[in-house]
Amino acid sequence: MNTEELVELGQQLRVDSVRAAAAAASGHPTSSMSAADLMAVLLAHHLRYDFERPAHPGNDRFILSKGHASPLLYSAYKAAGVIDDEELLTFRRLGSRLEGHPTPRRLPWVETATGSLGQGLPVGVGIALAGQRLDRTGYRVWVMCGDSELAEGSVWEAAEHAGHEHLDNLIVIVDVNRLGQRGETRHGHDLDAYARRFRAFDWHTVEVDGHDVDAVDRAYAEALATEGRPIAVLARTLKGKGVADAEDREGLHGKPLKDADEAIAELGGTRAIRVRVQEPPTTRSLHSAGSGQLELPRWEKGERVPTRDAFGRALTALGTARSDVVALDGEVGDSTRAEYFAKEHPERYFECYIAEQQMVAAAVGMAARGRVPYATTFAAFLTRAYDFVRMAAVSGAGINLVGSHAGVAIGQDGPSQMGLEDLAMMRAVHGSTVLYPCDANQTAKLLAATVGLAGVRYLRTSRGGSEVIYGPDEEFPVGGSKVLRSSDADRLTVVAAGVTVPEALAAADALEPEGIRIRVIDLYSVKPVDRETLRRAAEETGCLLTVEDHHPEGGLGDAVLDAFTDGGPVPRLVRLAVRTMPGSADPDEQLHAAGIDADSIATAARLLVEQVIVA
Amino acid sequence: MNTEELVELGQQLRVDSVRAAAAAASGHPTSSMSAADLMAVLLAHHLRYDFERPAHPGNDRFILSKGHASPLLYSAYKAAGVIDDEELLTFRRLGSRLEGHPTPRRLPWVETATGSLGQGLPVGVGIALAGQRLDRTGYRVWVMCGDSELAEGSVWEAAEHAGHEHLDNLIVIVDVNRLGQRGETRHGHDLDAYARRFRAFDWHTVEVDGHDVDAVDRAYAEALATEGRPIAVLARTLKGKGVADAEDREGLHGKPLKDADEAIAELGGTRAIRVRVQEPPTTRSLHSAGSGQLELPRWEKGERVPTRDAFGRALTALGTARSDVVALDGEVGDSTRAEYFAKEHPERYFECYIAEQQMVAAAVGMAARGRVPYATTFAAFLTRAYDFVRMAAVSGAGINLVGSHAGVAIGQDGPSQMGLEDLAMMRAVHGSTVLYPCDANQTAKLLAATVGLAGVRYLRTSRGGSEVIYGPDEEFPVGGSKVLRSSDADRLTVVAAGVTVPEALAAADALEPEGIRIRVIDLYSVKPVDRETLRRAAEETGCLLTVEDHHPEGGLGDAVLDAFTDGGPVPRLVRLAVRTMPGSADPDEQLHAAGIDADSIATAARLLVEQVIVA
Repeated sequence: MNTEELVELGQQLRVDSVRAAAAAASGHPTSSMSAADLMAVLLAHHLRYDFERPAHPGNDRFILSKGHASPLLYSAYKAAGVIDDEELLTFRRLGSRLEGHPTPRRLPWVETATGSLGQGLPVGVGIALAGQRLDRTGYRVWVMCGDSELAEGSVWEAAEHAGHEHLDNLIVIVDVNRLGQRGETRHGHDLDAYARRFRAFDWHTVEVDGHDVDAVDRAYAEALATEGRPIAVLARTLKGKGVADAEDREGLHGKPLKDADEAIAELGGTRAIRVRVQEPPTTRSLHSAGSGQLELPRWEKGERVPTRDAFGRALTALGTARSDVVALDGEVGDSTRAEYFAKEHPERYFECYIAEQQMVAAAVGMAARGRVPYATTFAAFLTRAYDFVRMAAVSGAGINLVGSHAGVAIGQDGPSQMGLEDLAMMRAVHGSTVLYPCDANQTAKLLAATVGLAGVRYLRTSRGGSEVIYGPDEEFPVGGSKVLRSSDADRLTVVAAGVTVPEALAAADALEPEGIRIRVIDLYSVKPVDRETLRRAAEETGCLLTVEDHHPEGGLGDAVLDAFTDGGPVPRLVRLAVRTMPGSADPDEQLHAAGIDADSIATAARLLVEQVIVA
Repeated sequence: MNTEELVELGQQLRVDSVRAAAAAASGHPTSSMSAADLMAVLLAHHLRYDFERPAHPGNDRFILSKGHASPLLYSAYKAAGVIDDEELLTFRRLGSRLEGHPTPRRLPWVETATGSLGQGLPVGVGIALAGQRLDRTGYRVWVMCGDSELAEGSVWEAAEHAGHEHLDNLIVIVDVNRLGQRGETRHGHDLDAYARRFRAFDWHTVEVDGHDVDAVDRAYAEALATEGRPIAVLARTLKGKGVADAEDREGLHGKPLKDADEAIAELGGTRAIRVRVQEPPTTRSLHSAGSGQLELPRWEKGERVPTRDAFGRALTALGTARSDVVALDGEVGDSTRAEYFAKEHPERYFECYIAEQQMVAAAVGMAARGRVPYATTFAAFLTRAYDFVRMAAVSGAGINLVGSHAGVAIGQDGPSQMGLEDLAMMRAVHGSTVLYPCDANQTAKLLAATVGLAGVRYLRTSRGGSEVIYGPDEEFPVGGSKVLRSSDADRLTVVAAGVTVPEALAAADALEPEGIRIRVIDLYSVKPVDRETLRRAAEETGCLLTVEDHHPEGGLGDAVLDAFTDGGPVPRLVRLAVRTMPGSADPDEQLHAAGIDADSIATAARLLVEQVIVA
């Protein structure tokens, strides 16, 4: 396209953005208008993408990090001929694919859900890493960011990661339109403020007038010609560009233009330009997942093995069996035991340093590229990335998160290192699976099961050694549980998981000579829960005592309730959980102080059986 | 102190760090040893601190962001004469004040809990902001960071904030010892890599050999003489410095030295140097909180007001009544309505831009300086700061978080903007309070109640207008609830909160002509819950139906269970919640699609009353 045609295309994207927002009576036309020329030049001259085949291995990847500018994205799809005008005008309506913020669950051309700002670039880094180290089909990753979102630390985690890894297949286009939601950004139109920051993180930067299509064209060309560094194209733009009443004005964020018809007229009316987007280069197909026989490690009953250790060994075996498995860790691989995988499969191991948001985002990016990622850190520090986990669910991304050092059982390090909210956090994620093994063989089997699941899968592991209580051939279906002690005389059921399983068994042993028989259930699948077994236990023993190394809210105790919320009878329920703020102490002291050790369980069981505390 | 004395003091801090870790048989001596000279010079020559009066308004503030180097901190306390050798050797034992990672809940000289890396600087920024804009007593904020933690994006959110605010009362000392937990950091000993980054964010930087006490002395002096910019002192150090077997070696992170006695001998043995720390300058006392009469806004029944709007007006009134109330917002003040406060009390309003981690950290810093902070953004985006919220609870910090735009009720914007995990996340925080008002007067009263509470307080507000159903003089105690419909003929209790309260009332109205009477409880206090009212409802109506604009896990439904976990009888329970991934639609369509609107409630109630779905 020549200059005039590019200008016309930019105007068309503006007009269609205005029209879509007007039809929806909501949305972000002004944020779309600032970036319209940037998008026009990208679409017409630089993006290589086969819209008919979104899975084409040579396709460039485009992420609209400023997801609220979705009208621009959808207008570009229309210009590319993959949605029609009628669909464009369904924007933000019930049932439409064109949501307020784009998601891959609805549209095949969207790589990742955006709308929580500062996430597009980190996910883009994940895709670019996959491109550089795994796919190697030459695709480029384009991320369009707003200027406001550069305040998010996650952007600088990503900048650091990309700079360090020399991701020259990654190009960030920053639409510096000066205005955030409620007024001017910190740096206004000072492009150099952003450039200095990116350059400090070892990026190449290009500053450009974002409404001069030829200059933008040259900027993209310079970006593509840059080797050894990721590139930031910093474009000075005007929010609401092209409509005098809206241009560069405050107070118009996230609102349809007041008079859409007049604005459209001012923009030169509707157009029907159809863009022929460049084909991706012919390239070999994506390396298909080699799927060999999985030979999980095996442990003998009675061995003492930390579940984190079993996880590390099982993940390594999984990586041997499947070439699509990748691992990412937050600079604690020696603790999480992801280092075992790193040693065996270094080409599929991604050190993310202490940057948990970037780690989870990179996992989302890897999942978008067809990989099965396992991202690991202490359970406590996954809280750092909760917004990314939540958005992974919006994307429908299949990622695995493994949190080690869960609970007070870690001992001396104290509460800052103890995952005590992780079960609540992960259970609340839409479509998630939450698993919490108590021994090595169970850990390995559950890890193997995660591969086949959809959505966010969370595996919780423990620091200290625990006795292997299951044989290596035992099966542990997701949604199941194990009844470890059972008799017709059971007067109570203890529901435990992870480190509280051996405590529950010890309590059962202590109570038996007193003539108190209790049932013990290992509820390794915290979500989904095994309704059938829990309900049978409720019917047969009348009372459930849950014991968890987690705060009382949102964890195992609450999960058990899931089995009883269909309006049927609910058994008596008592919960033992970590109710005080722990300090430093050894693991046994911690469990005791928290009231979740065998003694505490036995005491509670005696009281319940005697009905002393029954209301 | 002269050079030799400073060197000796550094060695003493090393020896005591080694001894503490040896006594505990755990801990981080090598990370303490790298920073020992940095600490010695700070303590002896630059810190102004009255250890007898930690609340002295002129005291400098020191934060050990690399909290795992706690042996160094405790050794410094010993050198300052505020803990004795006996206490030093209780390190990491049950009941000791000297936890694995320092917390203000145990020690009066600790400003904030650390141990989750990358948090010390953001909290330090909060304190420095308080110093610059509120306290104005001339104190300096010193933050000692590790090099590994500079990978955290939160550090760069903080760097951006501090640079933008010209916080020249903030000095970060980075202990660049080259080694992270599992090996070398990204930048090793390349001090300039860090310096470039800080300078890009408008900091002054000083590079120094961290074991040359005179050079360190000069570096601190240069920092103190710097005006208009925050200062980063980047110190090249060696992990394990002073003990040949440990110095600059990998694989020794977080482990006591193999032979402590030999190491102590190599370091020159124990010493008994006592440091006279500089007195803080005589200064006026902290501005005491002016506490005038609180005149909350009032609304008439029947008005339609968004609860976020009521929050904004009530917060403004609170700010008028109390001069210790401050507000912080993540660049969405026009949405959260924190802008009302900003307009009335601009001197106590802190714009944090789109950097939620920094926002919550600044709130923690403000709380450490005696303020009552309210930090606001969309409920969804508070997930970004979960690790900071968790650590605020470890600190025992009294902070208020207000999440607007909760749930599917926001409408068209779609799932990225919908807080659907926030109740789970906030309930699981130790010692938290979780409030969810349904109308304007209730919002104002609950907001007023938050001031007097300890710990993390969360208030959930809604985007759309809702009818005022309570009079302006109604009281809403925390831990209470309101029974909105009740009769002797009630056959079911609907437990609702926030946007589902009017839906429940509408369902009750729809059912009454059918002869089905239901009780309706407004459970505005989600944590703690009103056990008494819920139990009475259970006894009198037999079945509870919870309805929430939140995922089914960890929210209102689970909270209700809290009333029934003492081993007594549990009523039948059914939960209506958001079980599918929402798309775009208008608010009414969203509530209907999620199955939490009046129709859905009425349908569920009919089924339950008919016992159709009773197991």
